[in-house]
Amino acid sequence: MTHSLDHTHDPKALSFVDSANQPGADFPIQNLPFGRIRHAGLGQGVRVVVAIGDMALDVVATARTCGFHGLAAEAAEACDGGDLNRLIALSPAHATSLRHALFDSLNQETPAERRAPESALVSIDESEFLIPVDIGDYTDFFCSMHHAVNASRIFKRPEPLRPNYHYLPVGYHSRASSVVVSGTPVTRPKGELEQGPEQAPVYAPCKKLDYEVELAIVVRGGNRLGETIPIDGCDDAIFGVCLQNDWSARDIQRWESLPLGPFLAKSFATTISPWIVTTDALRPFVQLQTPRGDGIPQAPDHLKPKADEDTTWAIKITCAIESEKMRSGQVAPRTVAVSDLMDMHWSPKQMVAHHASNGCNLRAGDMLGSGTISGPEKDSWGCLLELTHDGQDPLSIGDETRGYLSDGDRIVLSGGCTSDEARSIGFGVCEGIVMPAN
Amino acid sequence: MTHSLDHTHDPKALSFVDSANQPGADFPIQNLPFGRIRHAGLGQGVRVVVAIGDMALDVVATARTCGFHGLAAEAAEACDGGDLNRLIALSPAHATSLRHALFDSLNQETPAERRAPESALVSIDESEFLIPVDIGDYTDFFCSMHHAVNASRIFKRPEPLRPNYHYLPVGYHSRASSVVVSGTPVTRPKGELEQGPEQAPVYAPCKKLDYEVELAIVVRGGNRLGETIPIDGCDDAIFGVCLQNDWSARDIQRWESLPLGPFLAKSFATTISPWIVTTDALRPFVQLQTPRGDGIPQAPDHLKPKADEDTTWAIKITCAIESEKMRSGQVAPRTVAVSDLMDMHWSPKQMVAHHASNGCNLRAGDMLGSGTISGPEKDSWGCLLELTHDGQDPLSIGDETRGYLSDGDRIVLSGGCTSDEARSIGFGVCEGIVMPAN
Repeated sequence: MTHSLDHTHDPKALSFVDSANQPGADFPIQNLPFGRIRHAGLGQGVRVVVAIGDMALDVVATARTCGFHGLAAEAAEACDGGDLNRLIALSPAHATSLRHALFDSLNQETPAERRAPESALVSIDESEFLIPVDIGDYTDFFCSMHHAVNASRIFKRPEPLRPNYHYLPVGYHSRASSVVVSGTPVTRPKGELEQGPEQAPVYAPCKKLDYEVELAIVVRGGNRLGETIPIDGCDDAIFGVCLQNDWSARDIQRWESLPLGPFLAKSFATTISPWIVTTDALRPFVQLQTPRGDGIPQAPDHLKPKADEDTTWAIKITCAIESEKMRSGQVAPRTVAVSDLMDMHWSPKQMVAHHASNGCNLRAGDMLGSGTISGPEKDSWGCLLELTHDGQDPLSIGDETRGYLSDGDRIVLSGGCTSDEARSIGFGVCEGIVMPAN
Repeated sequence: MTHSLDHTHDPKALSFVDSANQPGADFPIQNLPFGRIRHAGLGQGVRVVVAIGDMALDVVATARTCGFHGLAAEAAEACDGGDLNRLIALSPAHATSLRHALFDSLNQETPAERRAPESALVSIDESEFLIPVDIGDYTDFFCSMHHAVNASRIFKRPEPLRPNYHYLPVGYHSRASSVVVSGTPVTRPKGELEQGPEQAPVYAPCKKLDYEVELAIVVRGGNRLGETIPIDGCDDAIFGVCLQNDWSARDIQRWESLPLGPFLAKSFATTISPWIVTTDALRPFVQLQTPRGDGIPQAPDHLKPKADEDTTWAIKITCAIESEKMRSGQVAPRTVAVSDLMDMHWSPKQMVAHHASNGCNLRAGDMLGSGTISGPEKDSWGCLLELTHDGQDPLSIGDETRGYLSDGDRIVLSGGCTSDEARSIGFGVCEGIVMPAN
C-alpha cells in the first residue's frame, strides 16, 4: 500500500492548544479537518478553518502571519473569501502541503514566534457553521449488501439482490439543494401516502420518517466530460469525508419510487457534519477492503484496483436517538447502532471509478453518499427501516419505543477512526432535530 | 386566464433589426429570449444577451446607454458579469420590466436616439455560446403518458402504468454537471452491458444510444427548505424554457436501473438550446391543459390548479437526424417526429408544485426536464426506443436505417409556438453530434 505516513501522523505529536491533546478528543493535531464558519473574532464574512481541540483556526490568517510558502501558501490563499471548493479543486500535493504547514503552526514544539497567532483561534462552540462545501451534484450509493438485502426483504422485492448488485455500485442522483449542515432542524415532509389498492393516495405528513447513517465522500473530481477516472487514480480524486444522515420518508418512497427511483422521499433534507476529514488524516486508517465471500462474483476489471490497492478506511459511526422527553429529562442520547465502513461491499474508490466510467464529469465539491452503512448484525444496522422491520417491531429507547421517528427526536451521528499505532481521530457530530410538518 | 397580453405581444410590432421581421424568424421582437455569449465585439468576458433576428443584443450595455430605470435597470444590472442566475432570482415583475425596456429599445417606432446602440448588437453566428444558466439541480420528469406506456411495453414491465402515475408527475434527480449547451459534441458512453442471465456484464461502448426530445423548464424557485410552492403560485416560479435532448444509453439503463432508477445511462450528456424563452414571451401560447380522459383519476387537490388556471403552452418540437453520410452529401437533416407539449399528462406547473410539495427548496436556475414528449401517434414519438421498438424495427432516414444512433449522427431539435392571433416565436436549435467512445 502506498499510503505512507509522515510526521503529521506521529501519535506522540502534541499541540500547544491543550484541548487537542486530551484523550478521546475528536480533533488532535493529527486530524485538522476543514470547515467554514462565521465568528466575530475573525471579522465579517465566512472563514475557512481547521479544527484543533475545541478551537477553530483561521487558515488564511495563519498562512499570512506564519509566512507559508510554495504550495501551502497557494492552498491557503485559495481559501480566501471563505470558499473551500477552490482548495478542493487544487492538487493532492497542495492539500498535503497545507496540512504540513498548519501542523507546524500548531505543534507544541514549534517556537512561539512561528506558531499560529492567538487572534486566528476562536472557540468552536461560539462559531456559526456553514455547510463546508458548495455541492455541485450529490449522488447517493447503495453500497452495503446487508442493507440492500434487508431492504429487499422488507419491501418484498422478488429477489434479495438484483443481478447487477455485485457488478456495479448501485447509485442514483440525489438532491444537492437540500443538503444542510449539522444542527439545521429538519421539517417532517408532506407527501402522497398510499391508502391501499384502487384508492387515491392522501397528501399528508410522512408517517415513516427515518434516518440513514452514511459516509459523505467529497471529491476533487477533475475529469472532463467524456473522460473516465481509472480505478487506480481514484485515491487522488477524493478530498475527504464527512458524516451524513440521509433522512428518508419511507412511505413517500414506497409510493413514488417505481419505475424511476427515490425522489421526494429524499430531497427534503440530508444532513452532513461541518468538518471534512481529509484523506491525508485518514492515512493511518487505510485498510484492505474486506474480500468478497466465496461464490460472490468479483468486481469487473474496470472497478477492480490492484490487489494491494483495494483499500477503504476503518471508520465507525455511532447513531444515537434523543427524544424530546429524554432531552427535557437531561437523559443522554441512546445509542442504537454502530456502523462500520469495513462492512461495505463497494469501496469509496470504486464509487468514484464507477461514477466516471461513462464519462460523467465529477467536479470539485461533488458529494457521494455511501448509502446506509449496515453490517451483518442488528447492532450495526444503519436505519429504522431495518432496525424496526418497517416499524413493525419497534425499538426501545429508554422508556419509549420508536417504529419511526417522532417530532422532537434528535438524531446524533458521531464517529471516527482508532488504531493501535495511530492517534485516534473523530469526525465531530452530525445532528438534526425533527420538527413537525408545516 | 390571467395571462394578459400587452404591447410587447402585438403581432404587428417590428424591430429596426430587419432580420427579426422576416416570416418564420425564430427571434422576432415579440420573443427576446436570454442567452450568454462571448464575442470580441462586446469586450472580454461573458455577456448576457437577448436574441433579435440574427443578432444578439448586450443587455447591460443597452440598459446603460438607453438609461433604463426602475425594475428594468435593476434587472439589467443583475446581468452584469455575464450571470443570468441573478436575473432569474429576481421577481417576475423585474423580468417583465426588462422585457418592456428591451422591446422599446429594439422597436422600429422608437426614435433613433432612444434605440439600442449599434455597438451592443453582434452576429449570433459569430458568437460563442455558453450554457445559459448555472444549473444547481437538474430534475427529469416522465410526464408523457404515451411515452410511459410505450416504455413499459418495450421494457416488458408488469403493467402499462404504475399505480402512482395518475397521482403524481413521476420524476427523478438527474445530473447537473453534464448538461451542455447546443453544439457540444457528445461522446458515446461506455458502461456495463448485460450479456444474458448468469453471465457477467461487459464494460464496452454503449450499443443503444438514444436521444429524448424534452422541454427544459428553468425555475425561479425561491421557496426555502421546508416550504412548499402552492400550485396556484407556480406560474411565478417558472422563468422560462429551453429545448432539451436528454441523451440516453438504453442498454446501460436497463442493466443499472433496478432498484434505484437511471444513473449512468443519463449522466454522460444532456444538451439544451442556448436561449431561454421567457414565460412572458410564451403568454400568447398559453393553453388549457388537455383534460384527462374518462376513467382516469383527476390530479390530487394539491396538484390541481383552479379550472381556468390549469394551463400549459402550445409548444411543438421537431426532431431531425443527420447522418455523417447525409452531412457529407449535403442532404438536409431528416425529420423523424414532431412532439407537442399539449400531449403531456402533467403540466410544467404541476411538476413545480409536486417538486416542492415535500419542502424541497428550488433555487433560481434549477432545471426541470419534462421527460420525453410523445403523443399518441408514431409521428410524435420522442425517442428511438419508441420509434424503433428498442432497435428491433429500424427507422429509415434517407437511404440508411437506424435502430439506435451511429457515431457521426447529429440530432437537431427545433421548435416554437404558433397561433393565428400572435406572432410565431422559435426557440433556436438544440443540436449535438455523436462522437465515438474513448
